[in-house]
Amino acid sequence: MNVILPTDLSYCNSLRQRREKLAEKSDNPVILWSGKAASRNFPANQYPFRASSHFLYFAGLPLENAVIRLEAGKLELFYDNPPASASLWHGDMPHRAEIAEVIGADRHYPLEELAGKTTDAVTIPVQDVITYQQQCDLLQRSVSLTGKDLNLAQAIVSLRLCHDEMAVAELRKAAQVAVKAHQAGRNAVLSAKTEAEVRSVMEGVIIAHNMTCSYNSIVTTHGEVLHNEQYHHSLQPGDLLLADVGAETPLGYASDVTRTWAVSGQFSPTQKDIYDIVLAAHDNCIAKMQPGVEYRDIHLLAATTIAEGLVNLGIVQGNLEELVARDAHALFFPHGIGHLLGLDVHDMEDLGDMAGYESGRVRSDRFGLKYLRLDRTLRSGMLVTIEPGFYQVPGILNNPEFRNTYNDVINWERLAMFSDVRGIRIEDDVLITDSGTEVLTADLSY
Amino acid sequence: MNVILPTDLSYCNSLRQRREKLAEKSDNPVILWSGKAASRNFPANQYPFRASSHFLYFAGLPLENAVIRLEAGKLELFYDNPPASASLWHGDMPHRAEIAEVIGADRHYPLEELAGKTTDAVTIPVQDVITYQQQCDLLQRSVSLTGKDLNLAQAIVSLRLCHDEMAVAELRKAAQVAVKAHQAGRNAVLSAKTEAEVRSVMEGVIIAHNMTCSYNSIVTTHGEVLHNEQYHHSLQPGDLLLADVGAETPLGYASDVTRTWAVSGQFSPTQKDIYDIVLAAHDNCIAKMQPGVEYRDIHLLAATTIAEGLVNLGIVQGNLEELVARDAHALFFPHGIGHLLGLDVHDMEDLGDMAGYESGRVRSDRFGLKYLRLDRTLRSGMLVTIEPGFYQVPGILNNPEFRNTYNDVINWERLAMFSDVRGIRIEDDVLITDSGTEVLTADLSY
Repeated sequence: MNVILPTDLSYCNSLRQRREKLAEKSDNPVILWSGKAASRNFPANQYPFRASSHFLYFAGLPLENAVIRLEAGKLELFYDNPPASASLWHGDMPHRAEIAEVIGADRHYPLEELAGKTTDAVTIPVQDVITYQQQCDLLQRSVSLTGKDLNLAQAIVSLRLCHDEMAVAELRKAAQVAVKAHQAGRNAVLSAKTEAEVRSVMEGVIIAHNMTCSYNSIVTTHGEVLHNEQYHHSLQPGDLLLADVGAETPLGYASDVTRTWAVSGQFSPTQKDIYDIVLAAHDNCIAKMQPGVEYRDIHLLAATTIAEGLVNLGIVQGNLEELVARDAHALFFPHGIGHLLGLDVHDMEDLGDMAGYESGRVRSDRFGLKYLRLDRTLRSGMLVTIEPGFYQVPGILNNPEFRNTYNDVINWERLAMFSDVRGIRIEDDVLITDSGTEVLTADLSY
Repeated sequence: MNVILPTDLSYCNSLRQRREKLAEKSDNPVILWSGKAASRNFPANQYPFRASSHFLYFAGLPLENAVIRLEAGKLELFYDNPPASASLWHGDMPHRAEIAEVIGADRHYPLEELAGKTTDAVTIPVQDVITYQQQCDLLQRSVSLTGKDLNLAQAIVSLRLCHDEMAVAELRKAAQVAVKAHQAGRNAVLSAKTEAEVRSVMEGVIIAHNMTCSYNSIVTTHGEVLHNEQYHHSLQPGDLLLADVGAETPLGYASDVTRTWAVSGQFSPTQKDIYDIVLAAHDNCIAKMQPGVEYRDIHLLAATTIAEGLVNLGIVQGNLEELVARDAHALFFPHGIGHLLGLDVHDMEDLGDMAGYESGRVRSDRFGLKYLRLDRTLRSGMLVTIEPGFYQVPGILNNPEFRNTYNDVINWERLAMFSDVRGIRIEDDVLITDSGTEVLTADLSY
């Protein structure tokens, strides 16, 4: 466990408050598993352990192979003390009693005692398959997001949607380190020879702060490949480099930041034109956000801003409202304007759209809306990303069906003049506050 | 797949030679799975994919969710082309036909066609649980290292034990990048304030070379915790920093290197005394290694050198041979002198001791031998680590049973004078050659 045990009593109290709130919403005992580290290429060579976010939310520590049971606001911890022989290889590890005190557990037991305490319990399926099988075995039923487990998931969503003070404090730390990583990346791009070198500098900042990456970094001159995890391209003077890199604190809270830089330090006129459109979309969105506003409308505002910018540049033609209604903007901005952010970089996405979509809402089939991960009324305490982009995705722009559908609104010859803009994205982490917003990544320039 | 497709024909030929050699040793069709990426905290947030090493050895590329079938030296590739929609998110990915050509597959099919071709097939269990279940389902039996699967594992061990030219070329690359990481680490330690900062610089070098860490780095002022994965300690002037950091090439080949540095840049006299003993053990071992030598004897040579050094320092007293026979050295050097190195940092350890222990040999119960991972006669083409160490492990030195057993040979007062030496290890990667050895990490100073 790469974390120093918090000694701050307020930490313990925050966890207790979360559990008390859950108790108000759940009649059944709740059992949450942390999971186990996954083997990489042989059993002793494991991926760095990441505890289940639901476990982290209520138990507060990234304990491996631990279980908590919550009933009427009381916490029971099930965790095996390390065997004496483990100290040779792993040093002194905190014992169950010590951990129980730090997280405010009312009682604590060895793992095997969980078997007798599973009656009527509800849970959330974990990601690692071996622990998932244990969940099913111990509860003597299949575990999925149905029935009373579904009720639990909804209760947890209602708690985790709006962050408490402790979460915000951690999310600020994650944001600050991402800001530093991007500041270092912006400098590095001027002298680096490859994508990998810039990635190295940025992830180096995260590692130096004893954090981990909250997702696999995207650091690419091919920003048009939205989930690009290749880093082998060399940097050419006219290239843009898109860097989507975030940090995760040892307690599991994430940040998610994207910047796009000119490798030469200076945008070409065409790159500047498009960059300014993306930045305008970003700024417009943040300016409009406050409690009560629909996030879907923020997405559509970004779409409208991008469409308007492209009309002004002569790449797109037509009536703005019609263009957005026809999803013409999505040819260049095919993804959503952002998502929830918290313990997960797409917060609670293990629950599908349950967290992202307000009860009764479902994803649209529309080309310009189907990748929107969040459709809720904004509330104070929500943390969301705002990440407009412009991309020339060959799979979209060369698709005969799209070309046909949008042939009347795209000036292809004009577009060809912007061929040095493959992909631009600007992404910040925006906390909704009572009075509007606070951009947690505001220290980072554009 | 973070790898550029090799266009070198010799690459394809090397893979073919490996498969032809396997065909000579295996009567049954061989099916090998690459595995799938594991989910971290939600399905879309995955750990970086690592293909099964046995798959990599014969197929040569880190393809996710791919299967190869080998029969009579012929290779069939089972792999699904990316769906058209994937190009939006992942860009143009190589198609099966292209991959088949690069790796020299004789035929290629969609994955679903594998189901009809599993009769009498043998395999090796993969690490990821979902793919493992598929192995059992498709072969319609439980898969474990028994029966004809065991024969296959033994055949693969016999091939992978001694590296071919292509493997050595990759292993050299991995070693060179580890050397650079350690050179950077040695400089960084002089100005860094925390373990995490040194780790950052070292892993940064690996990332900048578009490689990955071959295992979770150990960068610690508490070298006495052998598998320490914490990085939060601050560096104090009198500390030693132990850094065990290795690189893995995109094709999967590993290096494994340890150095121990004085945070101040200068060892104290006591630190220097112990360091010189560990270095002498390291040098003595490498000087004796050549084809035909027993690796176990190399381990015992390290034990003897360390015991001798400690006798000379007055920490231990007694007859050298007796001390080693009684495992007195293991109080301070409790692990083995090293292990096989190849596609896995503990090469083929997914097969248990099958690779490490020559047929008919088993692990000793002796305190000084039970952690030895390799007990074979050295042969040209083997790559092994040599990693002697000295540690003051509280779990050992404060253990009343050990204190009692070894009370007559340890001068505890004298030992107390060396309290500023918690842990020292020096580790290099040593290739056995026809004429003796070649240290792949020789460019790194001590």
